[in-house]
Amino acid sequence: MLETDQLTEADVRRIVREEVDRAFKADPARNTATIIASKGTLDWAYPPFILATTAAAIGMKTSIFFTFYGLNLIRKDFDKRILVAPTGNPAMPMPVPMPDVLTGMPGMKAVATSMMKSMFRKKNVATLRELIESALELDVNLVACQMTMEVFGYEPKDFLDGVQFGGAAAFLSEARRSHVTLFV
Amino acid sequence: MLETDQLTEADVRRIVREEVDRAFKADPARNTATIIASKGTLDWAYPPFILATTAAAIGMKTSIFFTFYGLNLIRKDFDKRILVAPTGNPAMPMPVPMPDVLTGMPGMKAVATSMMKSMFRKKNVATLRELIESALELDVNLVACQMTMEVFGYEPKDFLDGVQFGGAAAFLSEARRSHVTLFV
Amino acid sequence: MLETDQLTEADVRRIVREEVDRAFKADPARNTATIIASKGTLDWAYPPFILATTAAAIGMKTSIFFTFYGLNLIRKDFDKRILVAPTGNPAMPMPVPMPDVLTGMPGMKAVATSMMKSMFRKKNVATLRELIESALELDVNLVACQMTMEVFGYEPKDFLDGVQFGGAAAFLSEARRSHVTLFV
Repeated sequence: MLETDQLTEADVRRIVREEVDRAFKADPARNTATIIASKGTLDWAYPPFILATTAAAIGMKTSIFFTFYGLNLIRKDFDKRILVAPTGNPAMPMPVPMPDVLTGMPGMKAVATSMMKSMFRKKNVATLRELIESALELDVNLVACQMTMEVFGYEPKDFLDGVQFGGAAAFLSEARRSHVTLFV
Repeated sequence: MLETDQLTEADVRRIVREEVDRAFKADPARNTATIIASKGTLDWAYPPFILATTAAAIGMKTSIFFTFYGLNLIRKDFDKRILVAPTGNPAMPMPVPMPDVLTGMPGMKAVATSMMKSMFRKKNVATLRELIESALELDVNLVACQMTMEVFGYEPKDFLDGVQFGGAAAFLSEARRSHVTLFV
Repeated sequence: MLETDQLTEADVRRIVREEVDRAFKADPARNTATIIASKGTLDWAYPPFILATTAAAIGMKTSIFFTFYGLNLIRKDFDKRILVAPTGNPAMPMPVPMPDVLTGMPGMKAVATSMMKSMFRKKNVATLRELIESALELDVNLVACQMTMEVFGYEPKDFLDGVQFGGAAAFLSEARRSHVTLFV
């Protein structure tokens, strides 16, 4: 500890810079990730869960806010609801190129869904069920958007155990304290 | 006020921590939300407006930057332009499940659009017109992307009163001062 | 420089506020943009590159993390892979309105792709190739997601020169130090 009478303006500036540097490194916003999951297809189910579980694994406080079609990802019956459709997405890898009028035929959603699941299985990619379980184990907050629940007529009992409920204001009070804010 | 000769390094550190804590709490980035609206369908019109009006309602300085298809949301004729298509989105709730080749039939966009509007009306969800009006009343900045306007051949007179005009650089100078940055 | 014995608590607070103000202005998070490009169609190729090159042009440290369908944007053969499909997107400007069952006909993806390219050309919008080159010249980091590469069976040699490789953890350690974080 310096003696009082040795504290000059230069000393004070040095102390301040140390403290400010420490404060920026400890800024909770650097350690918080807030993700919106708004889509309800198999392909778009992956990004929010992969980003959230990775964020939690590197020590970040992480929340996913499920809204609009994204609510389906955390319903108890998600496995029957989460499909993937090749129509309108020419970027989806298909065994053979096909026009949308074919990808739109009856049964093609089932084909595309099972094809994507099988590709993921062969590559040892976690299933959606495994990702949800990892997220809960890593203390990722899974929050269902109450306004959309009401619009779609969904009840709290339709959702997986561990899911919380909240509105857009709750999401924003978390997001304003986060550097990482993503709308998937 | 302490006497000068009582200021020790410990005193200085205490003062610094108080000031830094105050500065972080007052960080304008915590109170700023910058949202890009890039999609022009009825379903994707809701998230930017709901998030922006909620952010403004809890006191945040809020902007929506409309680009690409999102420009349609703030045109004077938005009501004729903003539709919703079930094709390619197996997550959209439909009265009966149907393959994309059926949802793609003539007239289905009108059916899906009117179905979604009616579902929203029954649940007392604000219309797009009401959301735009709320956003303007709450001083949300609605900014049309000038580059996309030029590409699509849109004129300033095509847009609603109160809309501002700016480029990607304007968006980024706002976004770099915001914790909440979302691309919808 | 003030004499030590003139430093009062008020002096110290003034020094602290100056330093804190300087630190916030120099906060590297304000000068960092981290963008995810997850889509692989011509229309959605533009936003990440336009935002990233603009951010870099105004002096921000900028990265694009390419994942899922977005990987196609930085493959050597991107020109053959990046198409645009009107199906399921009623917001896309078309010469005449058409139902999805027509936009889904064989050949319509080629028509829509060539139409969009020609519209962009007439308006002097940069091509995707020009945007990629600008991004590399402006030192934007282009990072391919290793996990998706493995799932899709893509090799490092499939990618353009200058592309880097990394995982979701690498993306997040950059993103947590960025104010601008966008998922396109």
